[in-house]
Amino acid sequence: MEGTPAVEPPVLVETDAGIATVTLNRARSINALSEEMLAGLQAVWDEISQRRDVKVVILRGAGDHFCAGHNLKEMTARRADADGGHQYFNDLFATCSKMMMSIVNLPQPVIAEVTGIATAAGCQLVATCDLAVAAEDARFATSGVNIGLFCSTPMVALSRAVPRKAAMEMLLTGDFIPADRAVQLGLINKAVPRDQVADATRQIADKIVAKSPVAVKIGKGAFYSQAEMDLAQAYEFAGRTMAENMMARDAEAGIGAFVTKQPMPEWTGE
Amino acid sequence: MEGTPAVEPPVLVETDAGIATVTLNRARSINALSEEMLAGLQAVWDEISQRRDVKVVILRGAGDHFCAGHNLKEMTARRADADGGHQYFNDLFATCSKMMMSIVNLPQPVIAEVTGIATAAGCQLVATCDLAVAAEDARFATSGVNIGLFCSTPMVALSRAVPRKAAMEMLLTGDFIPADRAVQLGLINKAVPRDQVADATRQIADKIVAKSPVAVKIGKGAFYSQAEMDLAQAYEFAGRTMAENMMARDAEAGIGAFVTKQPMPEWTGE
Amino acid sequence: MEGTPAVEPPVLVETDAGIATVTLNRARSINALSEEMLAGLQAVWDEISQRRDVKVVILRGAGDHFCAGHNLKEMTARRADADGGHQYFNDLFATCSKMMMSIVNLPQPVIAEVTGIATAAGCQLVATCDLAVAAEDARFATSGVNIGLFCSTPMVALSRAVPRKAAMEMLLTGDFIPADRAVQLGLINKAVPRDQVADATRQIADKIVAKSPVAVKIGKGAFYSQAEMDLAQAYEFAGRTMAENMMARDAEAGIGAFVTKQPMPEWTGE
Repeated sequence: MEGTPAVEPPVLVETDAGIATVTLNRARSINALSEEMLAGLQAVWDEISQRRDVKVVILRGAGDHFCAGHNLKEMTARRADADGGHQYFNDLFATCSKMMMSIVNLPQPVIAEVTGIATAAGCQLVATCDLAVAAEDARFATSGVNIGLFCSTPMVALSRAVPRKAAMEMLLTGDFIPADRAVQLGLINKAVPRDQVADATRQIADKIVAKSPVAVKIGKGAFYSQAEMDLAQAYEFAGRTMAENMMARDAEAGIGAFVTKQPMPEWTGE
Repeated sequence: MEGTPAVEPPVLVETDAGIATVTLNRARSINALSEEMLAGLQAVWDEISQRRDVKVVILRGAGDHFCAGHNLKEMTARRADADGGHQYFNDLFATCSKMMMSIVNLPQPVIAEVTGIATAAGCQLVATCDLAVAAEDARFATSGVNIGLFCSTPMVALSRAVPRKAAMEMLLTGDFIPADRAVQLGLINKAVPRDQVADATRQIADKIVAKSPVAVKIGKGAFYSQAEMDLAQAYEFAGRTMAENMMARDAEAGIGAFVTKQPMPEWTGE
Repeated sequence: MEGTPAVEPPVLVETDAGIATVTLNRARSINALSEEMLAGLQAVWDEISQRRDVKVVILRGAGDHFCAGHNLKEMTARRADADGGHQYFNDLFATCSKMMMSIVNLPQPVIAEVTGIATAAGCQLVATCDLAVAAEDARFATSGVNIGLFCSTPMVALSRAVPRKAAMEMLLTGDFIPADRAVQLGLINKAVPRDQVADATRQIADKIVAKSPVAVKIGKGAFYSQAEMDLAQAYEFAGRTMAENMMARDAEAGIGAFVTKQPMPEWTGE
């Protein structure tokens, strides 16, 4: 497998107090989603999905930027394949889409912590995360159209996060939007001065760590499931989901404490 | 049936000049959606759906607040059931979802008039109403996650009203959002000073009362139907709907008056 | 066929530097969507869809306004039909919906350039275009409800462009919203002083003309297709779409130039 030669792994994971901080670790290539990076991220999601000690995930980029999207050099090299790279490109986008959907399917919420630029599939990562906090000087673009490659897979996530005409404008012009515009559109939750972005992200993460992990897991999963149902189906599904949530020990203990005006219990995650 | 003992009915309905004002009448329990309240609301929607004299509905809370969601004491008591309450909870959420969908299916538009807090299923009520006006100091939260019970059914309405990341933030943090943020997100239509909220709601209600009830009924029903169709289906359905609307007496009279520059007629509702 | 008698065609098309400017040319009737106008527009979309020299379309109104929706006089005259006009109205709305969907299905992006009023099906035109720029004093309404005819077909486009409660408010009250509110809601992309609206629209059009037409065509088509799929389907479709886009000559040339730090090539559109 090709890729930027490096001693360091492409993705770093640090766990502290229930929070896994996942760092895209290829600052030199603006954390491009090379084969190596995609495989690294997939392995991280696969592992975290099984870890009960991780309650929430922060996704960030090493260096000044979040992520610049696919590794175009690596892709260009495969034009030498017998089929001009067509099969390779199909597999690559399928691999990337699987990785993105693994974020959606992860039991734990994922918060993007964005500095610098988030472009193309890097912008898709932001749109895919459950929540996103950015530095005020961060910038977002689906810039593939500038080089002849429309951001079709990023569009899947972007068009589910922001209004249609705004998505179309980003996709057709390739222009950067600043962080305050990204807040208005709903692409990110909040923008803060650059030196506060880690703290602001951590603050939201800490809030979620303090919740019952079973409630969070049930809720995140149900969110994306019901979003694809019609109203009657969604209510039937969500009603059953909530009744099951009621049977969890954490719900019994938490609601019990609430109605008797006691402090919240230690959550068991069950 | 259990519930807050009270002489007064759980839901009050006053009708005046085509407007039915529906008041959640349990100020002491922050108008919680007890069994009694849910049954009362369902009966009100069933009745209003048949009343031709009601052109629009205003939904408000008695006392300082709109609604605090489910009655957790009543629910907790059912943990003593043989199955720990599972069947009861399933039935309860199905009953509540049916009540919420009755607002969607009601021929008349429903405007939430929100003061104080609207939390959990109370926030769901706001999201479910066709329109919402709130006091500037009103606050909204899907706070179940704080006590171990993710707001899965409120999420169905919330996630259809506001952008995804904003919905996720409310659901995962349980934090209150103020009324001006609720306007930005689309959860409510407008926020006004607290002493003007009744007037501002009434003003919108009066506008709708002045329209042809047949046009309003056709339109509201078609809105939610077409929202669940693909574009081609939605246009086929909406085109037939509009042709039928053209055949209504009110449309003939109204359009006739418009093209001949006469004042609008008295609407017959047919 | 009836219609406003006129020497001038109902729709004008001027092509310059890859941009087709399509002008609704019935200023006297506020560019109403008469039979003549609908047929004219359909013919224009059918023709432009085949033209490789047109890279982007600007849609504007002659005179002070954009478009006032259907021609109500023409419609009223058909109440004299044996069936009261029912079949005619069905056909008319089907014809109009086909015309609107032809904008969605057009390979080239369409930008609405809005001055004055855009009401009813005129507001639907704005909502349907891929992008929209308006004068600061432009105003938008789905005003049919005021004359007994709910804007059911405009609602299809409107409710896919703006949040639900905002759409409902426009549809139920019939009230105008100003351009700055239309920007907040996502109905239009930007509002500029009236004397700059043509330049601002042209600036976006020029940006899109400078992109590879094959990338733009693939992307626009994929946008609306994937919007109606669930997430897994959307990613499968978009991944294949993007792999095909990689095989286009423009993508090879553009990405090749990018990775070798050369200026972008002349696009071949293949």
